[in-house]
Amino acid sequence: MSAVEVVALTGGIGGAKLALGLHRVLPPGALACIVNTGDDFVHLGLHVSPDLDTTLYTLAGCESPEQGWGRRDETWTFMRALGELGGETWFRLGDGDLALHVERTRRLATGETLSAIMDDFRRRFGIASRLLPMSDDTVATRVHTPDAELAFQDYFVRFRAAPEVRAIEFAGASTSRTSVALAEVLGSSRLRAIVVCPSNPYLSIDPILAVRGLAAALRAPGVPVVAVSPLIGGRAVKGPTAKIMRELGIEASNRAIAAHYGDLLDGLVIDESDRSAELPQGLPTRASHTLMKSLDDREMLARATLEFADHLRRRA
Amino acid sequence: MSAVEVVALTGGIGGAKLALGLHRVLPPGALACIVNTGDDFVHLGLHVSPDLDTTLYTLAGCESPEQGWGRRDETWTFMRALGELGGETWFRLGDGDLALHVERTRRLATGETLSAIMDDFRRRFGIASRLLPMSDDTVATRVHTPDAELAFQDYFVRFRAAPEVRAIEFAGASTSRTSVALAEVLGSSRLRAIVVCPSNPYLSIDPILAVRGLAAALRAPGVPVVAVSPLIGGRAVKGPTAKIMRELGIEASNRAIAAHYGDLLDGLVIDESDRSAELPQGLPTRASHTLMKSLDDREMLARATLEFADHLRRRA
Repeated sequence: MSAVEVVALTGGIGGAKLALGLHRVLPPGALACIVNTGDDFVHLGLHVSPDLDTTLYTLAGCESPEQGWGRRDETWTFMRALGELGGETWFRLGDGDLALHVERTRRLATGETLSAIMDDFRRRFGIASRLLPMSDDTVATRVHTPDAELAFQDYFVRFRAAPEVRAIEFAGASTSRTSVALAEVLGSSRLRAIVVCPSNPYLSIDPILAVRGLAAALRAPGVPVVAVSPLIGGRAVKGPTAKIMRELGIEASNRAIAAHYGDLLDGLVIDESDRSAELPQGLPTRASHTLMKSLDDREMLARATLEFADHLRRRA
Repeated sequence: MSAVEVVALTGGIGGAKLALGLHRVLPPGALACIVNTGDDFVHLGLHVSPDLDTTLYTLAGCESPEQGWGRRDETWTFMRALGELGGETWFRLGDGDLALHVERTRRLATGETLSAIMDDFRRRFGIASRLLPMSDDTVATRVHTPDAELAFQDYFVRFRAAPEVRAIEFAGASTSRTSVALAEVLGSSRLRAIVVCPSNPYLSIDPILAVRGLAAALRAPGVPVVAVSPLIGGRAVKGPTAKIMRELGIEASNRAIAAHYGDLLDGLVIDESDRSAELPQGLPTRASHTLMKSLDDREMLARATLEFADHLRRRA
């Protein structure tokens, strides 16, 4: 029987911060993260899963605080040697980080699912929380710009999210399936909340929601679905959320975030500083301190989000 | 037109020492090494070519003098991280070394030949000498022991060459082909000698000679073929040559080495200390200092071997 109480939808760094907060304030095994794999790509012949790995490293406490991605105490001998061989070095893979990619690629080639491999990895990292790829099928985020249709990492890393976004596509989503593990955690009798982390809604959460049947599966348990807004004062803490909203002709506001998620949400956590701004219509909000600088910030926001969800559940 | 004057057949560390001597005493571009790929294997999903890489690193001057294999100034972050993931760590791959394997694997998957990839690599390492895989086809050395038929690296690295050798097989040899580049260097109008380096005859040189048509191609140019014996006083400097000879019921002697290579050879370079031992019948020998400790030793042995070959050519 699943001990999962909270399911969190998360992408990269911003989402992983709240996931860590939830991981720390909940009992061991009570958190399951559904992680975006729309950024996954094959690079140098290796299967790279940026958001899964960021979540893994963050929950294990071995993420690099300076970079925001990759591992702490990393070495870079491989990249230097690869550069000398004329290999592609625009996507930085640290020596320790490489172990994940090589071993994941090897195991995928033997027919193991990404879900099974990541479940083994998180156990080996000593993480009690579950770590679930949004799907074991390939769903590839593609960014349409005025000049080209770009693979996600080309847009995000190679071109540093500079090109104007006209549209975002999740190739393969319509035929993708959720995993058995995902159905299992959403069927947990202890489930009390589903949290949409403050990841980029367009690039990190939307691909998750695009997996066939996943959005409906999130509503099925009947527990509150609460998002934490990625905006503070109409700006993203990090990353191109606000820039993309402007490019898509959407106002960078909590109202727009609420409208974007629509019926999925039962509530939205916004930053205290946005209390006085125009609030979403017809959606409960809870103001909290959403800028997560310290570990305390992460835990406090996690608690506030869970309290809000519990409040919504009692009210329902 | 090929500027190649000398073709050297070589395997791992011992052979690479003489190859380096030849590389240093010959004009740039005058040496071509035909390298054993019978030890190549797919490990962690990566195409590893131990002897090609040892030759590459040695000629580039970036080999690890302590280990005898791999790169100088190597880091080991990948292996540590792989071990933490439960990956296979019996075959040690350094972080810098890994760049060769990842990039080679990636390029092979695009359809490039091993010959073309290694030719690019040696240029990028600034090596004027040619570096030719014995074949672009898979030829796998397999070691028959009383208990099992072992893949080469299992025998050599995992079991440290401890099992008794009953027979050695080169799977795929009968259908393998020599490369265009190999035919080109053997067709060089400047060719003056073919040198069989003091690598293990059974494990490193025999796979080369087993490639279909290769042994005949070595005789075709009509230049002297001279081997440097891997034995000194009936013992190998390093590695299991003498042990394997005993296990195969062969006396560990220069006579047996000469008999093993048979008609291929026009001469055998033996160690000075073996002058008084029984010499091969009907095969010219030249005594020299064959223990290569210093760079000077390597160059002196290279010069002595070439002088011997030139002497045989004039006499012919």
